[in-house]
Amino acid sequence: MEIKSSTKFVAELVGTFGLVFFGCGAAAVAGADTLAGLSGLGLLGIAFAFGLSVVVFAYAIGGISGCHINPAVTIAMLIKGKISVGDAIAYIIAQFIGALLGALVLQQVLSGQVAGFTAGEWAYGSNGWGTGYQSEYGLKSAFVAEAVLTFLFLFVIFGATSKWGNETMAGLAIGFTLVLIHLVAIPITGTSVNPARSFGPAILAGGAALSQLWLFIVAPIVGAVIAAVVWRLLERKE
Amino acid sequence: MEIKSSTKFVAELVGTFGLVFFGCGAAAVAGADTLAGLSGLGLLGIAFAFGLSVVVFAYAIGGISGCHINPAVTIAMLIKGKISVGDAIAYIIAQFIGALLGALVLQQVLSGQVAGFTAGEWAYGSNGWGTGYQSEYGLKSAFVAEAVLTFLFLFVIFGATSKWGNETMAGLAIGFTLVLIHLVAIPITGTSVNPARSFGPAILAGGAALSQLWLFIVAPIVGAVIAAVVWRLLERKE
Amino acid sequence: MEIKSSTKFVAELVGTFGLVFFGCGAAAVAGADTLAGLSGLGLLGIAFAFGLSVVVFAYAIGGISGCHINPAVTIAMLIKGKISVGDAIAYIIAQFIGALLGALVLQQVLSGQVAGFTAGEWAYGSNGWGTGYQSEYGLKSAFVAEAVLTFLFLFVIFGATSKWGNETMAGLAIGFTLVLIHLVAIPITGTSVNPARSFGPAILAGGAALSQLWLFIVAPIVGAVIAAVVWRLLERKE
Amino acid sequence: MEIKSSTKFVAELVGTFGLVFFGCGAAAVAGADTLAGLSGLGLLGIAFAFGLSVVVFAYAIGGISGCHINPAVTIAMLIKGKISVGDAIAYIIAQFIGALLGALVLQQVLSGQVAGFTAGEWAYGSNGWGTGYQSEYGLKSAFVAEAVLTFLFLFVIFGATSKWGNETMAGLAIGFTLVLIHLVAIPITGTSVNPARSFGPAILAGGAALSQLWLFIVAPIVGAVIAAVVWRLLERKE
Repeated sequence: MEIKSSTKFVAELVGTFGLVFFGCGAAAVAGADTLAGLSGLGLLGIAFAFGLSVVVFAYAIGGISGCHINPAVTIAMLIKGKISVGDAIAYIIAQFIGALLGALVLQQVLSGQVAGFTAGEWAYGSNGWGTGYQSEYGLKSAFVAEAVLTFLFLFVIFGATSKWGNETMAGLAIGFTLVLIHLVAIPITGTSVNPARSFGPAILAGGAALSQLWLFIVAPIVGAVIAAVVWRLLERKE
Repeated sequence: MEIKSSTKFVAELVGTFGLVFFGCGAAAVAGADTLAGLSGLGLLGIAFAFGLSVVVFAYAIGGISGCHINPAVTIAMLIKGKISVGDAIAYIIAQFIGALLGALVLQQVLSGQVAGFTAGEWAYGSNGWGTGYQSEYGLKSAFVAEAVLTFLFLFVIFGATSKWGNETMAGLAIGFTLVLIHLVAIPITGTSVNPARSFGPAILAGGAALSQLWLFIVAPIVGAVIAAVVWRLLERKE
Repeated sequence: MEIKSSTKFVAELVGTFGLVFFGCGAAAVAGADTLAGLSGLGLLGIAFAFGLSVVVFAYAIGGISGCHINPAVTIAMLIKGKISVGDAIAYIIAQFIGALLGALVLQQVLSGQVAGFTAGEWAYGSNGWGTGYQSEYGLKSAFVAEAVLTFLFLFVIFGATSKWGNETMAGLAIGFTLVLIHLVAIPITGTSVNPARSFGPAILAGGAALSQLWLFIVAPIVGAVIAAVVWRLLERKE
Repeated sequence: MEIKSSTKFVAELVGTFGLVFFGCGAAAVAGADTLAGLSGLGLLGIAFAFGLSVVVFAYAIGGISGCHINPAVTIAMLIKGKISVGDAIAYIIAQFIGALLGALVLQQVLSGQVAGFTAGEWAYGSNGWGTGYQSEYGLKSAFVAEAVLTFLFLFVIFGATSKWGNETMAGLAIGFTLVLIHLVAIPITGTSVNPARSFGPAILAGGAALSQLWLFIVAPIVGAVIAAVVWRLLERKE
């Protein structure tokens, strides 16, 4: 039986909420410790926080909504004809609402530190680039990394969920790909490959995080569209 | 054939014993090293110690008792009508006994250090909050984090074990969710989302760990109950 | 068709060789870096090196020999009546040979450093306890930890491979249990729960590693035997 | 229906591209941070970057090309009669092109740092040995480690994909084996076990990386051939 659109909407909203609260939460809560001393998570911990979020929601809501929790994924699925225009719009709205709620709850938690909390220019796990952001990579590096990594993300998604894939393991493979993407790109952009994940923290952080938000909408969509086109060509030949 | 209640009781007891001995053990044994030098586990290692404990017992005793090993999970399952009141009470008793035994064996191991061992205010991997505990988050942060994270834990549990889930992968997804929860909340509360896991160490540590124990009973149950209600609404619509 | 004993012998030998070369190799090669600076593996990396070794050989040779690669496991299987006395003896011989070969190849690799290599009292990833070993835990801690952790190891092995387990995921659950065991016990004993794994390095290291070897034969077997008895009782009731 | 050779060619090319971009990318982008401070990945993060790349492509393209993405694997499959000579040559060409493209894109990203980027003697995640490379192991250690570890890699590959293996879990087991290989060998050679993975960075780095490239072609092939012969003997007996 077809699952109701409202159920899918709730699933995408909670899934994106979880992705932002787990991923950005790990980065923001433990991030200061990571820089200050040995008790932090390190890049590996933050990479697992984002990637395992996709793993767990893939098995929790994958059977309901497909677990996109990322507008770039939804757009690629639209190009491949796997979702209707109406559902795609609803998914993307749910994703942006979920991401914003995740950032808001994170803001509440962070604001409750005994010694008080001061939000910086790229607070709440925001993405960015250039002077003052992480390892200080420029615009070219940021755009190339985000586009190429989103291409690889969608390439694995299409392969693992194709007729040649393994239905049981697809969620694990896709989530591990997001781990890999973070292992490369945290020092470059903090790693987005997901416009909604960048939107939530940027709205609350403002400043550079907000003025650089456009890249984390455009570059992931470029990478996702190219992957969708490549897979349509591969599948048409067979 | 129905499995005997006594077999389920033993399974829940050993599972909760293992969760506390692996999770709190990793935190307590390697915790000092983590703070003192590079040979420690870091937050990521402790997060895996708790999360992988759920993974391994999910596959060892999931077919026997469902592997709750957490009173908040048992209460949520009771609300969803998945377990009888009598079994729920037996499960919770087994979980508290198992957690206490785990903490007791851990105490024996720690007390055997050549240079002697002095238990601090939050010893044996106890949960807590406020001045002097980890990154010093206040009561509001502790309650919000524990309640929201337990909500997400139960949301994944219900989804992964629903008719839309994948039976083979459910245990992995649920345990990885506990990894994620620890990646966010160790600096805030040490991470409980499980009244029994907090009870065992608190009884032996006493002091602040014991006087703050109420929060790690109330907040997880609040989050678990909300998740059970949300899932009942979602499933009723379909 | 029944698999030949000689094929099982080769499988157990190569599996135990791999466990020692991967696990002790990670500890010995990167261990110095771990202590000296940030480029090391940390306890988490060494824990994964041993645990993932069991995961990968479970799927490589599990269908051939059951992938014991540990005399304590073989003895527990003998008590449960899952293996003949003749096969058990052959398995244990293969495990000791494989472990010794693994330590020998590791010795060759380590001896090839440009600046030369000096083997210490517990070289090649040897197990131990007491003054001078890791976090300096005494005999009581070492024995309790090794026996209790081997009990939990076998408890998961019996559960995951029982009629209530999941055949596909058993290897992952069992290997992850060995990760957990290392997350707790590396600072205490270096973590054995496996007489063959301790034997290989101890023969080459000599000294304290060899004189303390008895504990890593006795304690794991005690824990394994108790687990086998508990599971026989549980299964007899059903 | 038989999959077209051109589809397999694209799959092997993109898979090897991804392996190099993820693996060498993690090593090169975060490597400097790893050495300089606490925010780095450590050896464990780099080990996961290479190993999980094999996991995710195994599930994305395993059903298309078998996901070799490594000439040593293709040669071993040729010896076992699992692939035709024509396909093997096409696979190896695709792997070398993919690896070179991965290194080229990585070069573009690295060159975009605000403060500029200077490529060292073993830049872009190149493999090597001897004075000045990592923990300074000599030629003997490098050759033995690369050959023995490739033998173990292929041993697991043949076992996990044999009639005694588990089709669902084979990709995970094989990728985790590459994690293990890196946990041992990063301080020795940076870890290759894959001529194509060494080729891409070496071409761009030149210098020592290029003059030492021969070892990372010869030693992995030696280990792979021995594993193929051992497995032929094991299977012929049954």
